[in-house]
Amino acid sequence: MSEIRFDLITGKMVIIAVERAKRPHDFVIAHQEKKGSKNCPFCPGNEAMTPPALIEIKDKKGKWLVRGFPNKFGALNREEKEIEVPALYKAEYGYGVAEVIVESPYHDVTFGGLSVEQIKMVFHAIVERYKAIAEDKKIKYIQVFKNFGPRGGASLEHGHWQIIGTPFVPDLVNKEIEGTQDYIKKERKCPYCEIVQYEKEAGVRLIGENEYFLAIAPYASQYPYESWIIPKIHQEKFEDLDEKHLSGLAEILKPLIEKYEKEFDMPPYNIVLHTLPPEDLRNYHWHLEIAPRLTIAAGFELGTGVYINPVAPELAASVLKIDVLQPARKEVV
Amino acid sequence: MSEIRFDLITGKMVIIAVERAKRPHDFVIAHQEKKGSKNCPFCPGNEAMTPPALIEIKDKKGKWLVRGFPNKFGALNREEKEIEVPALYKAEYGYGVAEVIVESPYHDVTFGGLSVEQIKMVFHAIVERYKAIAEDKKIKYIQVFKNFGPRGGASLEHGHWQIIGTPFVPDLVNKEIEGTQDYIKKERKCPYCEIVQYEKEAGVRLIGENEYFLAIAPYASQYPYESWIIPKIHQEKFEDLDEKHLSGLAEILKPLIEKYEKEFDMPPYNIVLHTLPPEDLRNYHWHLEIAPRLTIAAGFELGTGVYINPVAPELAASVLKIDVLQPARKEVV
Repeated sequence: MSEIRFDLITGKMVIIAVERAKRPHDFVIAHQEKKGSKNCPFCPGNEAMTPPALIEIKDKKGKWLVRGFPNKFGALNREEKEIEVPALYKAEYGYGVAEVIVESPYHDVTFGGLSVEQIKMVFHAIVERYKAIAEDKKIKYIQVFKNFGPRGGASLEHGHWQIIGTPFVPDLVNKEIEGTQDYIKKERKCPYCEIVQYEKEAGVRLIGENEYFLAIAPYASQYPYESWIIPKIHQEKFEDLDEKHLSGLAEILKPLIEKYEKEFDMPPYNIVLHTLPPEDLRNYHWHLEIAPRLTIAAGFELGTGVYINPVAPELAASVLKIDVLQPARKEVV
Repeated sequence: MSEIRFDLITGKMVIIAVERAKRPHDFVIAHQEKKGSKNCPFCPGNEAMTPPALIEIKDKKGKWLVRGFPNKFGALNREEKEIEVPALYKAEYGYGVAEVIVESPYHDVTFGGLSVEQIKMVFHAIVERYKAIAEDKKIKYIQVFKNFGPRGGASLEHGHWQIIGTPFVPDLVNKEIEGTQDYIKKERKCPYCEIVQYEKEAGVRLIGENEYFLAIAPYASQYPYESWIIPKIHQEKFEDLDEKHLSGLAEILKPLIEKYEKEFDMPPYNIVLHTLPPEDLRNYHWHLEIAPRLTIAAGFELGTGVYINPVAPELAASVLKIDVLQPARKEVV
């Protein structure tokens, strides 16, 4: 039997088809042969293979621990060129910014294997570059994301994040922000704050929590074993992350990604930031969405935009359940 | 350099990033080991492994050539059950229909390898089942599609199509139909008729044509080497396909799929029907969209809904260019 569930914010539908509830071992991950660190442009010693660094976080000996630079093969860049547009159609030049943040010097350590301190440094670097990109007033939206594994869209093995600044606010982003405004107008409450409170009490979709963040399997999950990490207090923008929230984020993200890596044998996945465009004054509540790529969006999804998810979020939460590390907090408070 | 192109009908943006123009051999298709015909539920002799047939097109000796039946593992079905909906959220029971059309008795013959006559029979069967499903007034939209290859979402090798009837009209479908109405209101012309006329004359995105259909690489292609097959005359609904159009469709689809199979060494792909919901009286112009699955929609696409396509549609058209078979026409006119 199936349920059609509606996303609380956008109204987006998803078909939860749980006739054959799928546990982690039901998904077969076809691993490709590893390329290894030889000739890896993200490894220490090969810095000349990338454009010059825009940010480096270094250890006491001066070796970098996190390194950011422009994406050599970025989909958008800051050149300004004329383009030809055929009479019937509309197009514009693809102005924009594309950067990479290498998350550690270690080629073979996955994101879940990094220390909480290292993950915190990654987010420090991302926030700093995010703010720098936001100063370019031609950039209207900044998408932060991580692709892992070939089927997660990562063309390089060495762990990294990407930041792409676009000269437009994407429709999908606007839809989520408008959904938030509509909900607030109607209910006088932020829908994400509502979700935090409801899921904390309900428990069945709760994956874990610490002082600052809640991890849940969202009620209308599009992907099997999808999860969201939401700040517990109403925090509009990602770039407003303070020191305590940075620690809290690293402390909940590490065990969650570690859990995915272990339960699904290094599954391909995407981590996607949802936040307000820079300078946008509407209400919102930033969060991270994690989408393991265990199934393929095929003809039905392409035609309808509606996803079929063979795993109930309630099962996903019970499988992903984590104990969140607390001790690292003391270092930073 | 990149262009941001807008879809003529929906305004949907796509980033065409052609810094490194990708030819067919730049895409590596990771083939999985074939399962073969043993225990294939879609092979002749194994009919008992599927639900009873809803349609069979037979040869003179009484053997089936095309066979349709309910999907044993359909995401939606006609049972009626109560579901529990948590107080904060909205959901409904997933009423619907899911059927399969096996496109030939031959396990190892791909769609491009079928004869024009066989492809015509496949569409005969699809149209007939489409009309039967449309009689259920609880079904509001019917999605016809074909998934090919594991990375195209096909869980079984033996060539088949799927038909899924949903109890709602998907937002994505509504958006395309509304875009069509808006264009007609503004320009007094059907946007798809405009595309047919414009691309026929421009030529650079033209893949091939016959008397009834045009195959093009659409201006704002979301996928590398995407193509559309559009009826040349203004035809609102797929199910209005007459005998001549059925032949024309098979005659243009065969060489196009054959071309994909040859140029890309059996790439995964989806063929997706775009048509009006049954009983919808708005204006539209049905067509097929073919999406080879050569790249992965990853973090950027998940977050923004905007696709990055590394192949200019103009290059795609020149690679896919086909001579359309005409002789088969004579049998049916």
